[in-house]
Amino acid sequence: MTVQENHLIQKYFNSLKNEASSISIGIGDDCAEIKSKDTFLTSVDTSLSGTHFPEDLDPFYIAYRSLVIASSDIYAMGGIPHSFLLSITHPNPDDEWFKKFSCGTQEFINDYKVSIAGGDLTQGPLSISVTFFGDPLPRVLKRSNAKLNDHIYITGKIGEGYQGLTKFMDYKPGNNFLKPKVPKELVEPLNPFINACIDISDGLLIDLERICNASGVGAQIKYDKSFVVEGLADLVRGDDYQLCFTANSNHHEQIKKISQDIFCIGEITSSNKVSVFDGGKEINFKTKGWESFSLKNS
Amino acid sequence: MTVQENHLIQKYFNSLKNEASSISIGIGDDCAEIKSKDTFLTSVDTSLSGTHFPEDLDPFYIAYRSLVIASSDIYAMGGIPHSFLLSITHPNPDDEWFKKFSCGTQEFINDYKVSIAGGDLTQGPLSISVTFFGDPLPRVLKRSNAKLNDHIYITGKIGEGYQGLTKFMDYKPGNNFLKPKVPKELVEPLNPFINACIDISDGLLIDLERICNASGVGAQIKYDKSFVVEGLADLVRGDDYQLCFTANSNHHEQIKKISQDIFCIGEITSSNKVSVFDGGKEINFKTKGWESFSLKNS
Repeated sequence: MTVQENHLIQKYFNSLKNEASSISIGIGDDCAEIKSKDTFLTSVDTSLSGTHFPEDLDPFYIAYRSLVIASSDIYAMGGIPHSFLLSITHPNPDDEWFKKFSCGTQEFINDYKVSIAGGDLTQGPLSISVTFFGDPLPRVLKRSNAKLNDHIYITGKIGEGYQGLTKFMDYKPGNNFLKPKVPKELVEPLNPFINACIDISDGLLIDLERICNASGVGAQIKYDKSFVVEGLADLVRGDDYQLCFTANSNHHEQIKKISQDIFCIGEITSSNKVSVFDGGKEINFKTKGWESFSLKNS
Repeated sequence: MTVQENHLIQKYFNSLKNEASSISIGIGDDCAEIKSKDTFLTSVDTSLSGTHFPEDLDPFYIAYRSLVIASSDIYAMGGIPHSFLLSITHPNPDDEWFKKFSCGTQEFINDYKVSIAGGDLTQGPLSISVTFFGDPLPRVLKRSNAKLNDHIYITGKIGEGYQGLTKFMDYKPGNNFLKPKVPKELVEPLNPFINACIDISDGLLIDLERICNASGVGAQIKYDKSFVVEGLADLVRGDDYQLCFTANSNHHEQIKKISQDIFCIGEITSSNKVSVFDGGKEINFKTKGWESFSLKNS
């Protein structure tokens, strides 16, 4: 850490106001000390400039977006995120950039009721690496627990992340690329009913396939325009951060009561693949998802 | 995550044999689940190619070195590291590189009796970001707890990291740049006696100054050739990963009994600076440490 880096941390991160009470020792020492139950959930997620966000994106949204995406893995596992470590690699110590970035961090902290525990700052190509911590709910939701004949659900329409990307330069409210929507209010009420769960980061088909591979099952999706923004292409577009989960069909009514935004999109089968039917016709896709989210190629 | 990245994780990281029993859910899901006491210690450390290690360093040592450095913060805080998340950014999916890197990871896991809990892989400029987790010992060692008249100690000679850097291309055993030595056996026996502690990563003077600033005290070092490899310059060279700690002078004999490698190098004063005396003469340094460890400028 350089003197300059120390100055940036003092000025823009020490002053952030935390919302969760999970931190017993925070920014400024060799480690953070975090309060815990018998177990904690944790996950790391790195967002690179030019790959996961455009290089010239307002630093407010670089912060907000990177933090939402990292927290999403905790929700997908059946947990409630409470704190995070933030590792920033930045090409030059730039007060203006860090000021905006710390404002985005503060807004995320307020919106998600979490705390910053610490982090580090190094000089190099722009990259944001976030390690998130969360408390597990009673049921920890593994990908490998989908059961034959389970219903498959998504917690909201897919395709909104991609729509937001096409218009991110407008910086208008409600843009799901700038501020991805994680269905955080649904995680606790849904927890008793879910068998397997994943967040849709790389595309519905590729992420659902991960559940199927881990569980040794297949899936059949009944395509319907009601659960996409644009059309069939939304099934292989990433960056939505809705949850895709499976549940026993007995729970269908209870699940539908939790939120009107939840769609039942198909069911788990004994095949070894994920297939999509539009009416009676099977649809074939060239790709299953955004295998590497490259803005350069879009 | 691309299919290629998934293949690399399956092939080189899923097969690593863990040494600690702290992981309840490991690699392969949205999150890891880790067992914990009432609190856990955590810290993140990012090592960049060209800054923290030479670009052409054998990937075995890129792994080993990055992991030791990240674990060092847990020891410095009075903790025993047990597990870590590994976030790798790499320019191209290269089987040979990942094979060597995973061998270095396995050797570190064996040597330090820890476990890999998960991580991520992204495509971009080479960078290794490690989040470490540890159990706190009875006394958590904050930088801010140095007391007036405390003795100042280091757990071993300094300057060995720099010596290792000048000859890293030889890849000879005992090179402290390739395999930094963390005094891990000393952390538990020393714990009852330490007031404040830090690991010497950026240089003795700058790291001791961090203790002094956090504690509102000063320090006087009595320079002696016995605790350096080369000379006075070793006081401002980083990358040693020995611990620098303070303790009440009443504990001096107990501390010296723990290890012959421990040196008492000075004491905490009421001034507001760190000063160094060689015999009766005060020495002035142009820099206090390696403020940014750049191989390009060395």
